[in-house]
Amino acid sequence: MTDDNRQMWTDLGIDLERHDALLNALGPIYQEIYLSQKNRPEGMGFFDFVVGDIHGIRVRELRQHAMNGGKVVATYCVFVPEEIAWAADAIPVGLCAGTQFSVPLAEEILPRNTCALIKSSFGFKLGRICPYVQASHLIVGETTCDGKKKMFEILAQYQPVYVMEVPSKKTRLSRELWAGEVLAFKEVIEKLTGNEVTADKLSQATGLVNERRRALQRLYNLRKASPVPISGKDALLVTQVAFYDDVTRCTQQVNTLCDELDGRVASGEGVFPADVPRILISGSPMAIPNWKLHHILESAGAAVVCEESCIGTRFFSDLVPENGGTVEEQLRNIADRYMQIHCACFTPNDERLDDIVRLAREYQVDGVVHYNLQFCHTYANEAVKVEKTLAEAGIPLLRIETDYSDEDVGQLRTRIDAFLEMIRR
Amino acid sequence: MTDDNRQMWTDLGIDLERHDALLNALGPIYQEIYLSQKNRPEGMGFFDFVVGDIHGIRVRELRQHAMNGGKVVATYCVFVPEEIAWAADAIPVGLCAGTQFSVPLAEEILPRNTCALIKSSFGFKLGRICPYVQASHLIVGETTCDGKKKMFEILAQYQPVYVMEVPSKKTRLSRELWAGEVLAFKEVIEKLTGNEVTADKLSQATGLVNERRRALQRLYNLRKASPVPISGKDALLVTQVAFYDDVTRCTQQVNTLCDELDGRVASGEGVFPADVPRILISGSPMAIPNWKLHHILESAGAAVVCEESCIGTRFFSDLVPENGGTVEEQLRNIADRYMQIHCACFTPNDERLDDIVRLAREYQVDGVVHYNLQFCHTYANEAVKVEKTLAEAGIPLLRIETDYSDEDVGQLRTRIDAFLEMIRR
Repeated sequence: MTDDNRQMWTDLGIDLERHDALLNALGPIYQEIYLSQKNRPEGMGFFDFVVGDIHGIRVRELRQHAMNGGKVVATYCVFVPEEIAWAADAIPVGLCAGTQFSVPLAEEILPRNTCALIKSSFGFKLGRICPYVQASHLIVGETTCDGKKKMFEILAQYQPVYVMEVPSKKTRLSRELWAGEVLAFKEVIEKLTGNEVTADKLSQATGLVNERRRALQRLYNLRKASPVPISGKDALLVTQVAFYDDVTRCTQQVNTLCDELDGRVASGEGVFPADVPRILISGSPMAIPNWKLHHILESAGAAVVCEESCIGTRFFSDLVPENGGTVEEQLRNIADRYMQIHCACFTPNDERLDDIVRLAREYQVDGVVHYNLQFCHTYANEAVKVEKTLAEAGIPLLRIETDYSDEDVGQLRTRIDAFLEMIRR
Repeated sequence: MTDDNRQMWTDLGIDLERHDALLNALGPIYQEIYLSQKNRPEGMGFFDFVVGDIHGIRVRELRQHAMNGGKVVATYCVFVPEEIAWAADAIPVGLCAGTQFSVPLAEEILPRNTCALIKSSFGFKLGRICPYVQASHLIVGETTCDGKKKMFEILAQYQPVYVMEVPSKKTRLSRELWAGEVLAFKEVIEKLTGNEVTADKLSQATGLVNERRRALQRLYNLRKASPVPISGKDALLVTQVAFYDDVTRCTQQVNTLCDELDGRVASGEGVFPADVPRILISGSPMAIPNWKLHHILESAGAAVVCEESCIGTRFFSDLVPENGGTVEEQLRNIADRYMQIHCACFTPNDERLDDIVRLAREYQVDGVVHYNLQFCHTYANEAVKVEKTLAEAGIPLLRIETDYSDEDVGQLRTRIDAFLEMIRR
């Protein structure tokens, strides 16, 4: 199996030496951060397996798909409508990367004061480290931030890239623009795959993606229980895996996990004592293996119970209406659904402030940690408004700006300890 | 007069203590950077006078306008169609600020890793230092970068702000969106002023703004001469002043200056010897009093002969067609004209690469200095492509990333000296 993997990676053009170094580093980190947790749900076994074989079995599936004439579509953002890819029998995979490992490589080309997510992802391509990038036929970017918008232009020198325009306002014309972008994306995908996106196929794909959204909603609802039946780290991992696993299998696995958590909630079983501080994290997304903030928080005795994030509620809170109709009608429904994502790319984006307050109450949190990646202008600026809003709502807030390095871990621990001390009931 | 000014500033809510400190600092800087230049055109006298009375006479005009029931519309970007403001008898003024003085104030609220232009401008509002901000009835922002887009939301807590959406792509739908934004802007201005933008008024305003564009084109064309008849610093100042001076007066003054420069070119008179290295600066805009890079370059023995910048060619290269027509037809012409600005907010923006190469040849430069403000993602990323393009064209390039502080001046001097040494003929 390992030899098979190495051959596959070689075929994909992977730099084996760098790749070995990455995987060799990941193992002990995962052991320390994940496997050392106590009283984990058994249902996490699948997700442990996925990470344990992170560049193996799933990549093999993508390769097999490609050998059968299928296409792999790589994305960086929850705005890219994956329903459309699935409907054309393409497989969408998330490419956002969460490791410092590839950041220095990216910095040879990209501006250093670019956020770690962008640098990490770009470094993966530059260093030929990530088999998901290598296995993809088309990278679909978007214009949700300046850093990505302009990085995609440079990335296009290495691999085919198509960029969708996400508007900045939510006027009628902005919505028309986005609806047009969704339609254009369908045409791009049809051309790439040679498969027509029919009403039936689109309806079926929408149903599958909605099912996964419902499963993640179920998981998050279970996190409202006290004591919380699953750690924030584990829940984060589940969401992260959902970005690149098969949609049906992932849904099943999340539901199996939730069945188990149902039992825990019914019996009052938790992973942490009921009186630990409950934390909502809000802000920039966290890609695998960016478990830094969750790990610090939960090591310090808190429970992360919700993420208002692209790797959290923004990913699954809204469903696409499943009322069928023509392809055009369904595409319109899809476009409308994605415009409900309260991303900081919009101006204004006050709905996000409402979301944070609402989630803080629904999840009965003791405090909110606003997380933004350094150099992420949109979330860093919104933090100013978040601070004001939460102060008015009487909800404690800690603002964290960080990157993927370990350099600030000590400082973060000190600040987080102080925050938890303040909010501890 | 000075007492009158102080009363006016007080009426505008200016923090006189801070404001005094700013003006007291500006005088010696202007003396050192501008007035110490040798063989300056006499036509610069007007611009010296404007800077010498920077917060006096022009502000008084705006106040007088307001007392007569007129409105002042403040802008941050060359994408805001000033024709429409003039046509409604509103006066547009540029608010971009170029001083480190107000940066620390802004950093109390804005993310520190925001570009200096945004921080400087925001700090002016926060510290009540700038009478142009105070005298304006509406600030019109736009979505050309994440930093400004999100700053405007915070600024709106202090003063009325309206934001125009500039799209990221140049598809048909993106252009439709922009055309809609231009129309909506007309309605906003009509509502603000109570004045209808008629076809005649719009046509007249377009003519006036075009005249100023032609005058600036004339000035830049004169800079193609060798020896160059005007310093880069002086030409930069002319463009900077054009952002807030009366459009007709500015046109006249630029043309008077150009008449003088015509004579210099005819007689072969220059401000620098003919054999000094000729430099094109390309990149982020430079607001008053950001003369840092020009000053370092020209103090080191180079001549800056062109700016591919919002405070340069992007500001005036394209005219709005003056073929009249209905208001709707004219607005469409205006929308089309502004979409020709090759701003790094667009993806892709390869037209800018063509512009740089073309301008480098037209102005017979010996090298290009790519200038981007630190934390400006769009221009910093485009620098990667600029570097590649200029290498292919055989044009020497120096990439500079800086801010408004003096901290890196020594380092910049060293790098610029080395660059000039390399390209010197």
